[in-house]
Amino acid sequence: MKKVITSTTNEEIKLIRKLQLKKYRDESGLFFAEGIRPVLEAAEQQASIRKIIYCPEILNSEAAKSFIELNQERDFTLIEVDEKVFLSIASKEGPQGIAAVISQKWFPLNEILKEYDGIWVGLDSVQDPGNLGSILRTLDAIGGKGVILLDQTTDAYHPTAVRASMGAVFSQKLIKIKKEEFILWKKTIKIPCFGTDCNNGIDYQKIKYPDKLILLMGSEQKGLDADLAANCDDLIHIPMRGNMDSLNLANATSIILYEVYNQHRQSKQQVMK
Amino acid sequence: MKKVITSTTNEEIKLIRKLQLKKYRDESGLFFAEGIRPVLEAAEQQASIRKIIYCPEILNSEAAKSFIELNQERDFTLIEVDEKVFLSIASKEGPQGIAAVISQKWFPLNEILKEYDGIWVGLDSVQDPGNLGSILRTLDAIGGKGVILLDQTTDAYHPTAVRASMGAVFSQKLIKIKKEEFILWKKTIKIPCFGTDCNNGIDYQKIKYPDKLILLMGSEQKGLDADLAANCDDLIHIPMRGNMDSLNLANATSIILYEVYNQHRQSKQQVMK
Repeated sequence: MKKVITSTTNEEIKLIRKLQLKKYRDESGLFFAEGIRPVLEAAEQQASIRKIIYCPEILNSEAAKSFIELNQERDFTLIEVDEKVFLSIASKEGPQGIAAVISQKWFPLNEILKEYDGIWVGLDSVQDPGNLGSILRTLDAIGGKGVILLDQTTDAYHPTAVRASMGAVFSQKLIKIKKEEFILWKKTIKIPCFGTDCNNGIDYQKIKYPDKLILLMGSEQKGLDADLAANCDDLIHIPMRGNMDSLNLANATSIILYEVYNQHRQSKQQVMK
Repeated sequence: MKKVITSTTNEEIKLIRKLQLKKYRDESGLFFAEGIRPVLEAAEQQASIRKIIYCPEILNSEAAKSFIELNQERDFTLIEVDEKVFLSIASKEGPQGIAAVISQKWFPLNEILKEYDGIWVGLDSVQDPGNLGSILRTLDAIGGKGVILLDQTTDAYHPTAVRASMGAVFSQKLIKIKKEEFILWKKTIKIPCFGTDCNNGIDYQKIKYPDKLILLMGSEQKGLDADLAANCDDLIHIPMRGNMDSLNLANATSIILYEVYNQHRQSKQQVMK
């Protein structure tokens, strides 16, 4: 189905704008993704796209145009809008003329048990959606499986998180759960859990990381919650020699994820020899 | 000198607010740093503090209070303000009741030649001040020396960069230079330069990093400029196995900086054995 909208006060456009708010994302189970790469990645990863909104005056990507052309008959709605309508729903930074409304997808905790290997990241009380998005991006880069959002952690479907993830929000599995439930579940399973502790942990390079693991990261201000830390198999830290006593959360997570990935790819190279 | 200001339209307060703008930062050679940690770190690192602005109704850090008490006689101006004035100059995220106006400090390129070792990061066309700030923070953590800002790279004294650096903007040396000048200078010196190239570089772990080096990073969108890449001693890349073809710039820089740091601390441990 295809329609054309040229009014910024159209009811459908108003609802799309409301997806900037967590309250309305939670109520509707939908989110808003903007830009050529995220929209094409959503289609590639078979995300449940409900609407594609595009603006011919802005869109100049051949790949995106042929995607729209080829999907005229699909089960989502194609909405063609003029420039003023597109700019009323788009973020300020270089709008590319294509966006989508997509159904959120959440997995149960037991999804983690399904495969014999896989790297998961658990985030406790992380506030910055840009950090969450770039962690998803690094996790995708190393072939990780997904993210567990504990308690008050920011929304993975926040527009900033979606944008910063560069499409990884579609390839990585998302789980949302209360800390207490996670701890109860952790006691029943055998998957190694590594938590970060700036003061007491072992040097993160001294661990031999298994093929399947959960890496738990706390907020920069408070560190990892004590109950979560108590349920980790090992506590690790990243050594520092300057004035700093902590790193940006996404940078710290990326540094550890790459240590895990480097160990795994080196051990694969040794097997091949 | 101490004064009390209770009007948001006071001329001095208006000038402080204008430091949010690059134009006025460039003209005045000043910048604005906010929060307990950045202000105390500025004092610790002997930055040239011109004004300290504090709000007794908001400030509840004993360390910051005694810093103000001890510095009544110093050569900067102490400005006590009420809550509405402080909030008119502060960022929205949890103001802590203390801020400073500080002179910018820039080093010439030859500062890099001064010591026999040291890790420097050169940033070409980097747009996001939050990324720049968190790169400074990681660089401080590994004991790096400073950052070279090439051409259109965002301002290290942008309020977001200052905040994200968590004080590292004071410990790390800052150099600002045109790309062409940097390339001419590079041809005359022997310091190894490593550039990132997603497509052609060597695996970043296959390099043995020397004690003194410059790591050149381009923007996420365009990669490293071709002229800069042509003047690097080696081009490196970070391997990936997921859908992603690039990482967030600050995450990528942090991953490489930690590889350099890990190699250096391991070789020191071997010498000690």
